[in-house]
Amino acid sequence: MPRYALKIEYHGGPFAGWQRQAGPATVQGALEAALARLEPGPFAVAAAGRTDAGVHALGQVAQAEMARDWDPFRLSEALNHHLKPHPVAVVACARAAGDWHARFSAVERRYLFRILMRRAPATHAAGLVWQVPRALDAGAMRAAAAHLTGRHDFTTFRAALCQAKSPVKTLDALEVEEVAGLWGLELWLRARARSFLHNQVRSIAGTLERVGAGAWRPEDVRAALAARDRARCGPVAPPQGLYLSEVRYPEDPFA
Amino acid sequence: MPRYALKIEYHGGPFAGWQRQAGPATVQGALEAALARLEPGPFAVAAAGRTDAGVHALGQVAQAEMARDWDPFRLSEALNHHLKPHPVAVVACARAAGDWHARFSAVERRYLFRILMRRAPATHAAGLVWQVPRALDAGAMRAAAAHLTGRHDFTTFRAALCQAKSPVKTLDALEVEEVAGLWGLELWLRARARSFLHNQVRSIAGTLERVGAGAWRPEDVRAALAARDRARCGPVAPPQGLYLSEVRYPEDPFA
Repeated sequence: MPRYALKIEYHGGPFAGWQRQAGPATVQGALEAALARLEPGPFAVAAAGRTDAGVHALGQVAQAEMARDWDPFRLSEALNHHLKPHPVAVVACARAAGDWHARFSAVERRYLFRILMRRAPATHAAGLVWQVPRALDAGAMRAAAAHLTGRHDFTTFRAALCQAKSPVKTLDALEVEEVAGLWGLELWLRARARSFLHNQVRSIAGTLERVGAGAWRPEDVRAALAARDRARCGPVAPPQGLYLSEVRYPEDPFA
Repeated sequence: MPRYALKIEYHGGPFAGWQRQAGPATVQGALEAALARLEPGPFAVAAAGRTDAGVHALGQVAQAEMARDWDPFRLSEALNHHLKPHPVAVVACARAAGDWHARFSAVERRYLFRILMRRAPATHAAGLVWQVPRALDAGAMRAAAAHLTGRHDFTTFRAALCQAKSPVKTLDALEVEEVAGLWGLELWLRARARSFLHNQVRSIAGTLERVGAGAWRPEDVRAALAARDRARCGPVAPPQGLYLSEVRYPEDPFA
């Protein structure tokens, strides 16, 4: 059966996360229901990152096996038609080789975490950022982030229910960028790694926020990491600031 | 009574525009209801720009007379508390002189019109941009915009129900900027004038889109302007792309 790579954007707000569940709406469920309008199925769509409830995606990558040989553009158009009114869109679609796998072939995931720093309640940006009521010290957050990049045991920054075999991961980059947006000044945290532990980015974002607010020193983050103790993590940041922004493969399946 | 200048941000989606009406929700109505939670009133809030249904604001400016002498920060906090859950926020508040008027003292209005150019349906950006399904030629749009800047009779770009005494206005600037956003490439049209006619920015945006799409030449816009005929206008662009971004006064009331 022809295999297709799908690049997917979604608003995480209405969904109980990526992964199909009996009952609550999920992104996987919405996508599989749209596929089932095109062919009988059943469909079991694999994705590069199983995002949590409320987490957004700009560039989630999934794969689907179709019975028919679809033109990729027509497939994406048909899916976008049937995905309505869900806030889920196929932004790219391509034929993929039979040995390509959306999850297992991925060599890098990139996440963006948006923090809006202002006092007045967000209007347009509500649900798209984590709003904090005052300016954060980006320099201190960068100093803290430097302690987290590289290969470490991230037990401190890992959800209790994380199913990864090992807590050791290599965080290839963790950048803190100031961005003047239409609604005010934002901090964008950008994280890159081959793979992440469950809640790792939100745990790091919540901890860096404590540094930016002056409640923690950058060295406290190093000590928390070294402790390998979940109790030493800062508060986990809320999901609405987090975006799965990009997934990379040895060769770009959408090129 | 002490007079206060209020800088207000709002999402236009749920509102039948700025101006109070019997029945539908309006931004003025929401703001006056919040004021009435603080003092008995009645309140009649004047604003610099009476935005239409669905139009957003980043920096609308309004004035309110209060019986009590409020600390401006506490007034903004109290209003933001009582404005919930409306997507309306007071982003700045200051005491103003008795001869300052939000509408009549204003010397410049600035509008932003956002066009998102992409095929796949918008998810996060839905309601915040005008989405067009293909790339527009920004250079051609800039050439057309050059015909519209300056002092002209803008009858062609004026709503039938416009109440302004004269159709002659001076458009101080009309810029076309390409902006790479999280959801794709956008065109931002930025317009500046002392004042605008009803629907002027949306009429211009819709006409420039026709130029960007190749359906009109830049010279066609010059001819349409010169015709002083509403029937020669392009399609009026939808409200969700439009933001009242800033209002200027001889002295910044929020400085």
